[in-house]
Amino acid sequence: MRITRRVKEILSHYESDNPGTKANLARILMEGKLGGSGKLVILPVDQGFEHGPARSFAPNPAAYDPHYHFQLAIEAGLNAYAAPLGMIEAGADTFAGAIPTILKVNSSNSLATAKDQAVTGSVNDALRLGCAAIGFTIYPGSDEQFEMMEELRELAEEAKSAGLAVVVWSYPRGPVLDKAGETAVDICAYAAHMAALLGAHIIKVKPPTEVVALEAAKKVYEKERIDIATLAKRIEHVVQACFNGKRLVVFSGGEAKDLEGIYAECRAIRDGGGSGSIIGRNTFQRPKDEALAMLGKIIEIYQGKA
Amino acid sequence: MRITRRVKEILSHYESDNPGTKANLARILMEGKLGGSGKLVILPVDQGFEHGPARSFAPNPAAYDPHYHFQLAIEAGLNAYAAPLGMIEAGADTFAGAIPTILKVNSSNSLATAKDQAVTGSVNDALRLGCAAIGFTIYPGSDEQFEMMEELRELAEEAKSAGLAVVVWSYPRGPVLDKAGETAVDICAYAAHMAALLGAHIIKVKPPTEVVALEAAKKVYEKERIDIATLAKRIEHVVQACFNGKRLVVFSGGEAKDLEGIYAECRAIRDGGGSGSIIGRNTFQRPKDEALAMLGKIIEIYQGKA
Amino acid sequence: MRITRRVKEILSHYESDNPGTKANLARILMEGKLGGSGKLVILPVDQGFEHGPARSFAPNPAAYDPHYHFQLAIEAGLNAYAAPLGMIEAGADTFAGAIPTILKVNSSNSLATAKDQAVTGSVNDALRLGCAAIGFTIYPGSDEQFEMMEELRELAEEAKSAGLAVVVWSYPRGPVLDKAGETAVDICAYAAHMAALLGAHIIKVKPPTEVVALEAAKKVYEKERIDIATLAKRIEHVVQACFNGKRLVVFSGGEAKDLEGIYAECRAIRDGGGSGSIIGRNTFQRPKDEALAMLGKIIEIYQGKA
Amino acid sequence: MRITRRVKEILSHYESDNPGTKANLARILMEGKLGGSGKLVILPVDQGFEHGPARSFAPNPAAYDPHYHFQLAIEAGLNAYAAPLGMIEAGADTFAGAIPTILKVNSSNSLATAKDQAVTGSVNDALRLGCAAIGFTIYPGSDEQFEMMEELRELAEEAKSAGLAVVVWSYPRGPVLDKAGETAVDICAYAAHMAALLGAHIIKVKPPTEVVALEAAKKVYEKERIDIATLAKRIEHVVQACFNGKRLVVFSGGEAKDLEGIYAECRAIRDGGGSGSIIGRNTFQRPKDEALAMLGKIIEIYQGKA
Amino acid sequence: MRITRRVKEILSHYESDNPGTKANLARILMEGKLGGSGKLVILPVDQGFEHGPARSFAPNPAAYDPHYHFQLAIEAGLNAYAAPLGMIEAGADTFAGAIPTILKVNSSNSLATAKDQAVTGSVNDALRLGCAAIGFTIYPGSDEQFEMMEELRELAEEAKSAGLAVVVWSYPRGPVLDKAGETAVDICAYAAHMAALLGAHIIKVKPPTEVVALEAAKKVYEKERIDIATLAKRIEHVVQACFNGKRLVVFSGGEAKDLEGIYAECRAIRDGGGSGSIIGRNTFQRPKDEALAMLGKIIEIYQGKA
Repeated sequence: MRITRRVKEILSHYESDNPGTKANLARILMEGKLGGSGKLVILPVDQGFEHGPARSFAPNPAAYDPHYHFQLAIEAGLNAYAAPLGMIEAGADTFAGAIPTILKVNSSNSLATAKDQAVTGSVNDALRLGCAAIGFTIYPGSDEQFEMMEELRELAEEAKSAGLAVVVWSYPRGPVLDKAGETAVDICAYAAHMAALLGAHIIKVKPPTEVVALEAAKKVYEKERIDIATLAKRIEHVVQACFNGKRLVVFSGGEAKDLEGIYAECRAIRDGGGSGSIIGRNTFQRPKDEALAMLGKIIEIYQGKA
Repeated sequence: MRITRRVKEILSHYESDNPGTKANLARILMEGKLGGSGKLVILPVDQGFEHGPARSFAPNPAAYDPHYHFQLAIEAGLNAYAAPLGMIEAGADTFAGAIPTILKVNSSNSLATAKDQAVTGSVNDALRLGCAAIGFTIYPGSDEQFEMMEELRELAEEAKSAGLAVVVWSYPRGPVLDKAGETAVDICAYAAHMAALLGAHIIKVKPPTEVVALEAAKKVYEKERIDIATLAKRIEHVVQACFNGKRLVVFSGGEAKDLEGIYAECRAIRDGGGSGSIIGRNTFQRPKDEALAMLGKIIEIYQGKA
Repeated sequence: MRITRRVKEILSHYESDNPGTKANLARILMEGKLGGSGKLVILPVDQGFEHGPARSFAPNPAAYDPHYHFQLAIEAGLNAYAAPLGMIEAGADTFAGAIPTILKVNSSNSLATAKDQAVTGSVNDALRLGCAAIGFTIYPGSDEQFEMMEELRELAEEAKSAGLAVVVWSYPRGPVLDKAGETAVDICAYAAHMAALLGAHIIKVKPPTEVVALEAAKKVYEKERIDIATLAKRIEHVVQACFNGKRLVVFSGGEAKDLEGIYAECRAIRDGGGSGSIIGRNTFQRPKDEALAMLGKIIEIYQGKA
Repeated sequence: MRITRRVKEILSHYESDNPGTKANLARILMEGKLGGSGKLVILPVDQGFEHGPARSFAPNPAAYDPHYHFQLAIEAGLNAYAAPLGMIEAGADTFAGAIPTILKVNSSNSLATAKDQAVTGSVNDALRLGCAAIGFTIYPGSDEQFEMMEELRELAEEAKSAGLAVVVWSYPRGPVLDKAGETAVDICAYAAHMAALLGAHIIKVKPPTEVVALEAAKKVYEKERIDIATLAKRIEHVVQACFNGKRLVVFSGGEAKDLEGIYAECRAIRDGGGSGSIIGRNTFQRPKDEALAMLGKIIEIYQGKA
Repeated sequence: MRITRRVKEILSHYESDNPGTKANLARILMEGKLGGSGKLVILPVDQGFEHGPARSFAPNPAAYDPHYHFQLAIEAGLNAYAAPLGMIEAGADTFAGAIPTILKVNSSNSLATAKDQAVTGSVNDALRLGCAAIGFTIYPGSDEQFEMMEELRELAEEAKSAGLAVVVWSYPRGPVLDKAGETAVDICAYAAHMAALLGAHIIKVKPPTEVVALEAAKKVYEKERIDIATLAKRIEHVVQACFNGKRLVVFSGGEAKDLEGIYAECRAIRDGGGSGSIIGRNTFQRPKDEALAMLGKIIEIYQGKA
């Protein structure tokens, strides 16, 4: 595999990582239809844990089978597939080497009242299952945030020393944030920045709204005239918060929505300099041919063709 | 021992497991009168811990003796016997190799106010006692759920690397669930799915009622017209939630009830594609000959003969 | 030392233990005037921790000296001497090999408000001090019960693998139990059963009263007509709860009382099939000659001579 | 590099440290324009974690790039650069050996409600990134203070045995202190002293005000006529609290303020015998040429030239 | 060094300790003007942590320098010097071998609201700094007491196996004790006894008042007519609680007081059979010549000359 100049440039920003970790980042960046472009589309399937099996898979019952998702990601030409332990275990052998996998090593569920997650996988699991990376969610602002960050710290140190990459889902919540605050632009940028400071290689945040949540931030956004009028500009702001673009940052698709809405969001991510999309429910809850068509279109958007 | 085609097929779904773990799953699946059929009947005796000795064994005082249960499981031709540390220790030598045992490594009791269990056994215990698997209870939805899942994670990783199988009792409870919610069909399916995601080889849940507990789930069950009208259909739904049937799922018998009630339940489990029954109080609280007759009948049901 | 048939029979019930642990159980069972009979009288001196030095030793000031208790247990021909770290350290060399010792590895005190104990000794301590066993208290039903059981689990696993025996003090308390409930017959039997399930070799509980504390238990005691009318019958019930007599169970003496009360209790323990007494304050708070006379009488009771 | 007499004298006060740690202290003390003088100016960039990226870097967007801060510290001729994991990782290779770095191994953020920080880096991280020291914040007086001190203890022991230096940010807060109390002179001196007792090599506190917060302290300050009338005298008092000047103590710049205010503060630190400044927001939030001019002036102050 | 008969006798009571620990106890007992007598005067300097630097050292500013305290203890001919990590580190090399040191490995401060301490040193620290012992404070009766005892247990086991001695400061407090109760004679004796049970070699408690705090104890003190009328008699009672004098017990000086008060207290400690004094504020807060004169007099008292 000949690593492209763009991917080499991206890898050069991860200057403290060992060759193993860089190789795994390269595996992800060189995979699929966007391979080599520096753009990423990742399929995450942790919805079964978060919302339960029926809410996740009943709209498209083929998706109850863990093989379905491997297959979907491969056929669509995505960069990677991310899922919790059981889902990866159930296809690790059949699809060995067929697509980079990201083991999601903590998980929450809809029965929980605490804003926390359980650690449900390990670096050893990721290694024995042939994964390229571990994935970990933090909830900055929650009462459990420091403990979650400390869990991440330990797992990330171990992952890096084992040559794995580290993907961080950074979803703010907790006592100082209301619902609107969780996706406010200052909060999304802050969440992305914290993930970068914690040593993430790939950062996942939600697309930011034009809300500014914190009073102290509001003054700065106004004084410095930070442009947050369009989604593309807000994406640009988040990218800047990721070490001025030196860290890969992808955006989640959020709730199922119509196709035009999805495409518009992807164009804004692209135009704002985001690294790509991590999109779950909007793919596997559609019939496979529709999902493939949609993913094809999204890839074209990131290729600048649509 | 010649492994049957059906068992080989089941084992093929555990594609990430090492030969040791597959061998122990095979030991359980090939044991007893249902050996080779892919169906399972397991005797669990953790009632002494859960409800105390008199409530558990006074109706049939022979059952105070730990040997009784080994003997019962063997005579009945069951697949495995599951119990806490002391019960297994008390018969491990006499019945060495006579029947696969599952060391239940956490336990609760009727004096507890917290919805939690104590870890009361280890993987080393399971190995020194010749067990084929460890068993672990999680209470999804309880305030302690994340800690329980993390305990399971550690024990399961260690068990798998030592070639043991992992059986998970998944019993939802906690602040968002009322009594009816604990056995609601969406909740049972969710509980089974979480156990699968956590890497369980064999999943134990309660037979689901036709209640749907969570509002967000209700909409999906209605919209997608999920058939939950009969127990068999609900079992089918739970089986689907177990990676579309790629994980073994057995159902507990619950409180002592009349024979016809038990047989009807087993037929529904069979008809819904469930892997079998794990049935405690309904066996050892009856006189041994009655218990053997009942278990014989249950086995016939799973054999499709009754 | 020629192990008696009775002791061999008892040892045969500990079928999962290694020869080291069996040898230490044999050391205890073969020691003293009851040696070889299968009956036990043990001297426990943790009163200083529980109630303070003056309340424990002022009635017989010679007992302030740790050597006193070793000497008393040896002269009386008891089976073993149990005490916390400092007490054992202070005599471990002088009395090396003179009597089996049990290192009490957790302790509470009268200044505590939590129903918990501190771990105050280790298996390494027990080994370096030449002990035959560790002793550990659990409070089933307390808010800390699961943590205590988990501490016991770890220490017991380590002790067993090092060839030591494990003695468990099982004293129920906590939110669901009032004062009378703590010694209720259902609760004592439950406490003894849990200790057995946790892997104890020797179980210590309080003599049960005829109270039945839990509503759910009451129904069973009545329906199954469990005879709890006399102390001997209640002891028998507790013995049954200890794996139908396959685990040694000894009963504490409780508060200082008159001699006839003590003797009557011992006769009931004997008649109910209990393994013996563990008796502290009633011994060391009397002048030594009186204590020796009393212990001589108790031993005769267990020998069936009084 | 020829170590100056002044630096040798300072190193002689760290009499229990191994040559590795002394060498790293010497690296910091011999670096930059103040190299060899025993005075220090350090650039700390943890504002992104504490206040978010926009509040930290929008006033000078070049500072979004982690390389900017390495470059600024080098060009200004500072002694060291301190930052959290991600910031150091992003420049560790490009600037390897170019300036001593201090890995800040715990961090808080503006979304937190607890007065605590998350451990976000390790001694291994510091070693693999070529750092000269670790940095750690304690909040004496907070509800989490003992846990923070215990984390520091473990990290400091490990750091020292690996030949790293330990820098402690000591910022009192918590139930017994109001806002004014956090920078009261008795509290700053106390905070500095605790850091020294915990084994810090370099101590960072805030410049003390003339408030005396604790009643018990007030009596002593009055009775012993401790001179706290000027900032220089208060600095002198804090220096005395650092083992009579045997530990290096630097003072933070606090909120952005005008140049004359900063210079006056530095002169007082110098005149009071403080070891120097650790100054973040006031540098990187200005255009680079202004920041360099300001730092040049500060250095001249510490050189006694301004 | 020829160990005296009296010291050999004392060492004989530590019958479970290894030669390394006995050698370190001997180093302490043979040091200084009281060397060989079995009596001890120890200088403890943890006041800076407990009360802050100004309250501790402003009355005698020379004491801000850690060397001062080593020098004072040496010149006064004391048995040992005890202090937290930073204080010992700052003089460990200059005074290597000059006087036995005790590393105080946990510490509290005046900003704390919890009745707890932070672990601030380790056995490894004590070894690398050449200490003869570790020192640890427990607060029997506090909400954190069990955790503190468990920390002590771990550190003491490690210390003993490394040949160090263990000194325990036992200061009762917490919900069941009012201010007067903390120094009540029953409580001081209880605190000393618990320290002995926890395996302490040297026990430090406060001089007991004639208050009896616990109702249950009051009855015993009256019934057994325990003489607590004079301080000497109360000391005698505490000594008895320390394994009938088989453990060394020293008494703290408490708040600064006049010389006659101090001397009277020391005479009572001597007359009651106490092992000596551990006296901090009353020494280092006086001018050095006064402190030396006072310590000379105290030593004469313990020598029976004054």
